[in-house]
Amino acid sequence: MQKPLTLISYPPFVPMMPCLEKVSAEKRVSLPLSCRSSAEEEQQAAQSKKALKKQQKEAEKAAKKAEKQAKLATDQQTTEEDDFAQDRYGVYALMQSQEKPDRSLVRVCELTPDRAEQTVWVRARVHTSRAKGKQCFLVLRQQQWNVQALVAVGEKASKQMVKFCANITKESIVDVEAVVQKVEQKIESCSQQDVELHIQKLFVVSQAEPRLPLQLDDAVRPEVEGDEEGRATVNQDTRLDNRVIDLRTTTSQAIFRLQSGVCQLFRDTLTKKGFVEIQTPKIISAASEGGANVFTVSYFKTSAYLAQSPQLYKQMCICADFDKVFCVGPVFRAEDSNTHRHLTEFVGLDIEMAFNYHYHEVIDSITDTMVQIFKGLRDNFQTEIQTVCKQYPSEPFKFLEPTLRLEFTEAVALLRSAGVEMGDEEDLSTPNEKLLGRLVKEKYDTDFYVLDKYPLAVRPFYTMPDPQNPKYSNSYDMFMRGEEILSGAQRVHDAQLLTERALHHSIDLEKIKAYIDSFRYGAPPHAGGGIGLERVTMLYLGLHNVRQTSMFPRDPKRLTP
Amino acid sequence: MQKPLTLISYPPFVPMMPCLEKVSAEKRVSLPLSCRSSAEEEQQAAQSKKALKKQQKEAEKAAKKAEKQAKLATDQQTTEEDDFAQDRYGVYALMQSQEKPDRSLVRVCELTPDRAEQTVWVRARVHTSRAKGKQCFLVLRQQQWNVQALVAVGEKASKQMVKFCANITKESIVDVEAVVQKVEQKIESCSQQDVELHIQKLFVVSQAEPRLPLQLDDAVRPEVEGDEEGRATVNQDTRLDNRVIDLRTTTSQAIFRLQSGVCQLFRDTLTKKGFVEIQTPKIISAASEGGANVFTVSYFKTSAYLAQSPQLYKQMCICADFDKVFCVGPVFRAEDSNTHRHLTEFVGLDIEMAFNYHYHEVIDSITDTMVQIFKGLRDNFQTEIQTVCKQYPSEPFKFLEPTLRLEFTEAVALLRSAGVEMGDEEDLSTPNEKLLGRLVKEKYDTDFYVLDKYPLAVRPFYTMPDPQNPKYSNSYDMFMRGEEILSGAQRVHDAQLLTERALHHSIDLEKIKAYIDSFRYGAPPHAGGGIGLERVTMLYLGLHNVRQTSMFPRDPKRLTP
Repeated sequence: MQKPLTLISYPPFVPMMPCLEKVSAEKRVSLPLSCRSSAEEEQQAAQSKKALKKQQKEAEKAAKKAEKQAKLATDQQTTEEDDFAQDRYGVYALMQSQEKPDRSLVRVCELTPDRAEQTVWVRARVHTSRAKGKQCFLVLRQQQWNVQALVAVGEKASKQMVKFCANITKESIVDVEAVVQKVEQKIESCSQQDVELHIQKLFVVSQAEPRLPLQLDDAVRPEVEGDEEGRATVNQDTRLDNRVIDLRTTTSQAIFRLQSGVCQLFRDTLTKKGFVEIQTPKIISAASEGGANVFTVSYFKTSAYLAQSPQLYKQMCICADFDKVFCVGPVFRAEDSNTHRHLTEFVGLDIEMAFNYHYHEVIDSITDTMVQIFKGLRDNFQTEIQTVCKQYPSEPFKFLEPTLRLEFTEAVALLRSAGVEMGDEEDLSTPNEKLLGRLVKEKYDTDFYVLDKYPLAVRPFYTMPDPQNPKYSNSYDMFMRGEEILSGAQRVHDAQLLTERALHHSIDLEKIKAYIDSFRYGAPPHAGGGIGLERVTMLYLGLHNVRQTSMFPRDPKRLTP
Repeated sequence: MQKPLTLISYPPFVPMMPCLEKVSAEKRVSLPLSCRSSAEEEQQAAQSKKALKKQQKEAEKAAKKAEKQAKLATDQQTTEEDDFAQDRYGVYALMQSQEKPDRSLVRVCELTPDRAEQTVWVRARVHTSRAKGKQCFLVLRQQQWNVQALVAVGEKASKQMVKFCANITKESIVDVEAVVQKVEQKIESCSQQDVELHIQKLFVVSQAEPRLPLQLDDAVRPEVEGDEEGRATVNQDTRLDNRVIDLRTTTSQAIFRLQSGVCQLFRDTLTKKGFVEIQTPKIISAASEGGANVFTVSYFKTSAYLAQSPQLYKQMCICADFDKVFCVGPVFRAEDSNTHRHLTEFVGLDIEMAFNYHYHEVIDSITDTMVQIFKGLRDNFQTEIQTVCKQYPSEPFKFLEPTLRLEFTEAVALLRSAGVEMGDEEDLSTPNEKLLGRLVKEKYDTDFYVLDKYPLAVRPFYTMPDPQNPKYSNSYDMFMRGEEILSGAQRVHDAQLLTERALHHSIDLEKIKAYIDSFRYGAPPHAGGGIGLERVTMLYLGLHNVRQTSMFPRDPKRLTP
């Protein structure tokens, strides 16, 4: 959408968003009365007195803030009589789509030496500003890119204009018209190191409040560096409480752009393999998977539950002849776990697939999908990986082709050889999983592997028993850097055996009737698994808390923002 | 994954899933005791007597069914002494991934005349079977494809084998080894019209119960045809109660493959435009959009709500510098609306985008995305469209480039000229929307258009007022075949105005504090919209009920399956 831009002639911009039309506090606080329709007035009349009082108080508060915010504009007003540059700067009126100027904006990442001497319009945030005599230096930021800009008293800018620029609050959004100039010495602190902008006009699009709840520079500082030099870093709760600002950091921008890539690579790989995307319901009538750790929803005159996984539904799709399916969506766990890797709501990347004769066909499909994701990230998101590494250093993620597959008994043997005492049919504890990850890395040099053939007793009722040894099962987990990211299995596709296994697990058959009935009218053998998106992003990048890879994380203690 | 296959030599299959190892009722009913771990036994011991009694009853019931189902196998057992073909047919033992035979399966759609005289293995469902003297004709079905197959008494098949084949229940899944034969007369009733399969071996992979809750042939019959000829069709509740079978029909397969395509086209188009995919939380702390029609969730010791849209979060992402974002996920509406187009849970395709000067930049992005979807469906899903048309005839979907945009006042004028009486600031009723769709189609020959500039009073509090006429707003809906599929607007990006508008709508400011605060630290002007996936699929295909385009629909009266 961004056209390469040289000098553009466009209709004078002033009439539509005039800096002359000074923005007064009164104007910003309330809409003209004509703006209130009769319907709205009736609605308002119906409110209680108490609410009205509260509103008045709020409005007063808002008015005060507005007054403060309009200070910039007012300052300008008092001095404009003798200001030759008065039309070159100011605060735009609120952008309500008043007009459609024929003006292209150049992106900060496009500001390179081949644009030298060009006059461009740029919209960006004021990352920092620093007045120095008759000059003011700004760093203008746009996502992960930034550029130095300069406004100096002279032909194009007055003393008042430079003062105005110096007073703009950090994080405000501005439109600047500027000439791109090559610089002799690289500007190390900016992403655009070879040019700077010489500002000719500057208008504030949106003002930030003067006190920011956190400083972006603090938020990207590596923790070690902060400790050593006594400089500030930002703790996790402050970050999450002010997520909108924390997400603006180069690190956050990189994390979530890479996460968007994980989803895309997951779907593209599976689509190429002939999978169909499905959408499964999240509100379900029965807590199907045993009944524990499930959120209850009021559903009209009855109650319902939030799905702990789409598993039962994706299996029904296999019984409905979709053959290979995937879905990407939220899953809900009412677990009171306050750990670095548990969320009460996370994004599941789910796969289910009919196979011909052996569930290893499905393992192969899943591991290949993971490998395609790893390769895609490595090849297309190197900038993002490097950006995150600056704040959170980690080793590059290693994987093998084909993926390493170990059996559970082999893992137990490995752990025992490292001094761990555990029973044959005992599940792996989290510390043992991590230790195993280290042992596997040492022995096989991979951060990704499959652990196959878990004990039947530690898996859900719908897991297919191993045909050779009924103490084990056709089930598997996958691990990244020693932490589980996927759990999966061949499923029981026979209604009778499924009934028996459900009874075994004391599950109320009435509640899973529709599920069991799905297997009564011919069901192909099938297997699948569910991947936790946030964990994949966290572990690929070598991060240490899943809240860093969830935009608005939910845990037992956090429901906002 | 499917290799072209001629005669394959593979290790004899009998030992691994032997038809000789006859499947007896006892064997199918319960797992060997060794299969039960001590952990499981303890669990079972802990159950109450009452539960155990119930379980016994269930187990008896299961045993009876199993006995019935094993009849096929038993029938064979009694006659096998004098059966030369006894190794050529039977019921496989439950597929537990016993072995990995080196056998490729050919897909039904790959059965074409260039495979004539080849021996192939095919796995498919028995769609119909019809014995006729010493022969048995089967139609074998795989998703939307089917092929005729024949087993005849002769060198390769015994009398008993033909009888066995004739007794296989519909919808059972079978493996057949067969020779592909060209036919002289096209087989009109099958998708593979030029060949048939001459069966040499047949094994049942998964048996269907003899009584199906609905017949697939009835489920794809056009309603008019059913009425005229007195033949059965299937009503909606029967379909939805037995969705796993209903989803197997050619019509359902086509609908949901096309829907998968809608999602893919939506994402691919936006990714190309530089949008980032985001994941927003569904459990939220406050019913942000006014508080009506929201589901309540128990959240540990407090309560929470299910998000009615990701709107507030996608806006926060804009304030967090993601610039252009989209998300695909469930949205929840606790509306007690029992109409053809309302669901309590549906899939939202959501867009939010910062713009430079005018929200029409966003309208243009959205309409172009819709046009790319329509073109992609037209060009890549013609088979699916034709398949659905056979059962539910409709006119091809028409659209213009660029997309038609009308203003609300123009729509009111059009409706008034057609005799409708309505006020200037009145919202459109559903019948008026449909009428308007017909008037627009007549006048402009398009099934897709944008209605811009709705009255401010009928839109949510965060809608930006029109700068020229404060009775109107910078908001829009988009329509397909006269029904709304998207609602969107420029949002208020100024905390003060937003506060005022919220108070105006009597919204508790405390509850949307995080939302309003997002705009305090510099916010770009932005707009967006939310699209209902199921409605897009329904209206593109000219269907008449949104339950047809939701795999497992949720409405006030339906929570299962």
